Amino acid sequence: MYELKWSHAEKIVARRAFDKALGEELEALIREAKSRAARIEEPLDLWDLENWLTERRREIDRRYDYRYSVLPLVFAHLLRDGRLTEDDLNGLEQEKRDLIRRASAL
Amino acid sequence: MYELKWSHAEKIVARRAFDKALGEELEALIREAKSRAARIEEPLDLWDLENWLTERRREIDRRYDYRYSVLPLVFAHLLRDGRLTEDDLNGLEQEKRDLIRRASAL
Repeated sequence: MYELKWSHAEKIVARRAFDKALGEELEALIREAKSRAARIEEPLDLWDLENWLTERRREIDRRYDYRYSVLPLVFAHLLRDGRLTEDDLNGLEQEKRDLIRRASAL
Repeated sequence: MYELKWSHAEKIVARRAFDKALGEELEALIREAKSRAARIEEPLDLWDLENWLTERRREIDRRYDYRYSVLPLVFAHLLRDGRLTEDDLNGLEQEKRDLIRRASAL
């Protein structure tokens, strides 16, 4: 996987798919954070919110890694989790799409 | 200060004053957290909220220290910041109240 070449056109497709998934994930996160904050009743809920935000931030930092060497795996995870569809990856060469699809089923 | 003796009655007064200040501080914190969350518009605001919560938690851990050896200084800070009034400290012996009042003016 680390030897794959990415054409300029593929890089544009990849960046768009990546940004779409990340943007939607962050929007969903904002909605959930507002909802969790609105439900806070006692101090422990406050520190639960803090912990939850810290975990979400670390998870996003870990999962959204745009290095081309790991991008097929990143896309495979996003496909598996429903953050991306195969249509979002149209424009990547067949070899990469097959790789991503196979990895998403693991 | 470290040599002060606390009678049983004084310990009750101290605990009540301490819990009152902490309780009010935490209630205010919950209100502000809800308000900050409601104003979130973009991802950076989310991580600002996380940082703010972490700082508040550490500040509260640091300031609300119930060891009798430091309690007069804790009360002095709470008095200075308007979290407690001198009335809340009624029932402590005069020596402690004078010490707390003097320290609160530093």
